[in-house]
Amino acid sequence: MTRSPIWKSIVTELEGDIARGHYAPGDKLPTEAELSRRFGVNRHTARRALADMAERDVVHARRGAGVFVKAAPFDYPIGERVRFSQNARASGRTPEKRTLRLETRPCDATEAKALALSEGSPVLVYEGLSLAGGTAIAHFFSVFPEPRLPGLRQAIEAHGTVTEALRAVGVPDYTRAQTRLTAEAATPVQALHLTMREGQPLLRSESVNHGPDGTPVEYGLTWFAGDRVTLTISATEAGGRHAPDTSTP
Amino acid sequence: MTRSPIWKSIVTELEGDIARGHYAPGDKLPTEAELSRRFGVNRHTARRALADMAERDVVHARRGAGVFVKAAPFDYPIGERVRFSQNARASGRTPEKRTLRLETRPCDATEAKALALSEGSPVLVYEGLSLAGGTAIAHFFSVFPEPRLPGLRQAIEAHGTVTEALRAVGVPDYTRAQTRLTAEAATPVQALHLTMREGQPLLRSESVNHGPDGTPVEYGLTWFAGDRVTLTISATEAGGRHAPDTSTP
Repeated sequence: MTRSPIWKSIVTELEGDIARGHYAPGDKLPTEAELSRRFGVNRHTARRALADMAERDVVHARRGAGVFVKAAPFDYPIGERVRFSQNARASGRTPEKRTLRLETRPCDATEAKALALSEGSPVLVYEGLSLAGGTAIAHFFSVFPEPRLPGLRQAIEAHGTVTEALRAVGVPDYTRAQTRLTAEAATPVQALHLTMREGQPLLRSESVNHGPDGTPVEYGLTWFAGDRVTLTISATEAGGRHAPDTSTP
Repeated sequence: MTRSPIWKSIVTELEGDIARGHYAPGDKLPTEAELSRRFGVNRHTARRALADMAERDVVHARRGAGVFVKAAPFDYPIGERVRFSQNARASGRTPEKRTLRLETRPCDATEAKALALSEGSPVLVYEGLSLAGGTAIAHFFSVFPEPRLPGLRQAIEAHGTVTEALRAVGVPDYTRAQTRLTAEAATPVQALHLTMREGQPLLRSESVNHGPDGTPVEYGLTWFAGDRVTLTISATEAGGRHAPDTSTP
């Protein structure tokens, strides 16, 4: 007979359930009370099992919400074309956008420079959350040159994805001109939106996308939850695909 | 006459000194006692001035070390060739490496896979700090396939930079095959090395460099202080340089 403590057996059972897919990444586990009932133990024992799983990053607790199965971070390629929906689907997750704000206002100096506008020109601000498989993975803030893209606001409301909305207003394709990456601590509001703790690390991306004619069409900031996404840059994207430069002797 | 509080005048004076270059980024400011003397105020007032500057990210306090002038984050291009020394110099900062560890040991499964070795093959581990202009900006951990690069350990000891050491052992050039980026919280040891607080955000890069013949020569992990470096990926590096693919009709 086994001599390992009861809480370890509970961990084994729960991790078996997760491995068999009964609880999928992002799913809420039963509460301490429910686990106590299921395993015939007191709450302290159930709590001990959950704490052990949290310590080993199998689950994570969200204050006031419960204990959730952690998802393995998903690979998010940063290349010539960066498409959230496509990247999420490639990792087997259903993409979803949740709008926090969609409004027109005059642009500031940074936005004007990035979009080649004069300061104060009207821009469409689209702020929201990107979800993959039901888990919020990023907070985004995108700015579009409104006069160059008439009807974009309605197109975003109708389509949800930026790629489809831009296509609907006459931008069939867009490519990434520059990406700037740094790490930042989550603000209290971001922590709330991304169900993480204030101060936890976010990967911040600042980017500009250009239309087929080289005109800027989107200036964007995205804060990715550090434990949920890995940005990847591969040689096929980042220059390795080039044949050696033979133009100079 | 001005009615603003004394501490505000001290802030104005000190920020003037910084603007005129009397205190450069990374420099230690005078202590509270020294500032009290210089401005003829009590320590509380000097502390208030420093606290205000820290709050606005002009300076940062390192526990037990003093108050330092913050450097603007420097742009660090991630392209086909990623060279720390070159990137630091391009930003006007003197590069420096500080060795924490240089040792040979058997590789683990991850290292074996990245370097196309069999598990347990000897690898040279080079761990250290990257400094730019006297400020630690990153903690690095690099692993090299020892048998493929005889003499590398001595070359690193002699040259300090990886580029020169590799050249000395017969690898004239190397290119970045893949980079994986995520955000992590600083561990207590990293916080100590990078003079930041435990839990502050780091930008973590995992990369593989290949030699001219496509053989892996370096597997590396680098943790950049989130507030000191911005990784940049530009279209010239990340695919934008390509002519449209005309090989398919």
